[in-house]
Amino acid sequence: MTVSGNCHKVKSILTLLNLPYEWIELDTRKGETKTEDFLRINPNGKIPVLQISDETYISESNAILYYLARDTKFFSNDLLEQTRILEWMFFEQYSHEPFIAVNRWLLKFVPGTANAGQIANNHSKGTKALEVMEANLQNKDFFVGNRLTIADIALYAYSHVAEDGGFSFENFPFVRKWMHNVKNYPKMISIESKDTL
Amino acid sequence: MTVSGNCHKVKSILTLLNLPYEWIELDTRKGETKTEDFLRINPNGKIPVLQISDETYISESNAILYYLARDTKFFSNDLLEQTRILEWMFFEQYSHEPFIAVNRWLLKFVPGTANAGQIANNHSKGTKALEVMEANLQNKDFFVGNRLTIADIALYAYSHVAEDGGFSFENFPFVRKWMHNVKNYPKMISIESKDTL
Repeated sequence: MTVSGNCHKVKSILTLLNLPYEWIELDTRKGETKTEDFLRINPNGKIPVLQISDETYISESNAILYYLARDTKFFSNDLLEQTRILEWMFFEQYSHEPFIAVNRWLLKFVPGTANAGQIANNHSKGTKALEVMEANLQNKDFFVGNRLTIADIALYAYSHVAEDGGFSFENFPFVRKWMHNVKNYPKMISIESKDTL
Repeated sequence: MTVSGNCHKVKSILTLLNLPYEWIELDTRKGETKTEDFLRINPNGKIPVLQISDETYISESNAILYYLARDTKFFSNDLLEQTRILEWMFFEQYSHEPFIAVNRWLLKFVPGTANAGQIANNHSKGTKALEVMEANLQNKDFFVGNRLTIADIALYAYSHVAEDGGFSFENFPFVRKWMHNVKNYPKMISIESKDTL
């Protein structure tokens, strides 16, 4: 889905790398990722999925980023830098996305379906993720190696639309500066507010 | 913590690779990962953390697995195999650990602290993760490349103690067979039931 941060990651790297692609839009709310046909492609029933040949599909947005970027300037040849990039990508999936993306989903796309306790818990944990990012971004333009990598692409996806989920960047000046850097990177794309379901 | 699956991953790869290490035990329940000293090491306040030099620490269990295993037989030189390994490791952190590990934690280590709805929701999502694993393991000994990789190590960590969280493998014969394969891999270690907090 165009509005999904996880899908946005894939569109971002395809655009940055000038790779041609066909985009097939599915709506999770209509059950389009739970059909028999789709579950044959990804038994986990989630998007994005990247098809790379007739029978070969890659799921997990951050694994797709790795596959497309490994041999480009958006990854690294250095073991420690590679590890730092993956460290942030695992952080994104475990400590950031489940709270920041989920509150955006609950508040913007399916309002009224969640209880206040769940929203508050996600808000607290998502704000903690922003604190960890802020602590790491002191005087840095990007997360790893002072250049844009797939760690930034992964973290930008849901960060730059976090206000949709009720998050504020008021206390996070370094995160704001980093988002500005990513947003203004040549050819980088953002989720537009006109992108609605 | 010895009982933590995320820490178990690190101990597993260190053991499999015959690497010398010093193990420092911390108890999250006593706040030992939230002290000022620890937060300087990992601002996210989580274990495991791998110290590789005086000032260099790696967090995120699956990033640690990558760092230690990239140039060994437990990873791969092939881009698609590397991607499959990471795909399962991101699956583990997003779709497996938050439900299977968390219900084990709630039921075994901090009983009485969670409500029935939360336990039931985790049980349903964790069982879904086991279904995805079962679908992928049909007639396979390991997840990627027909040999033990860090994908197996990551997924084994909380799978092999999932019964502590109320999960059953009765309907998952291929997952059972895979766990048997991992358990019996030379030098592979398991979390022992005597390993308590």
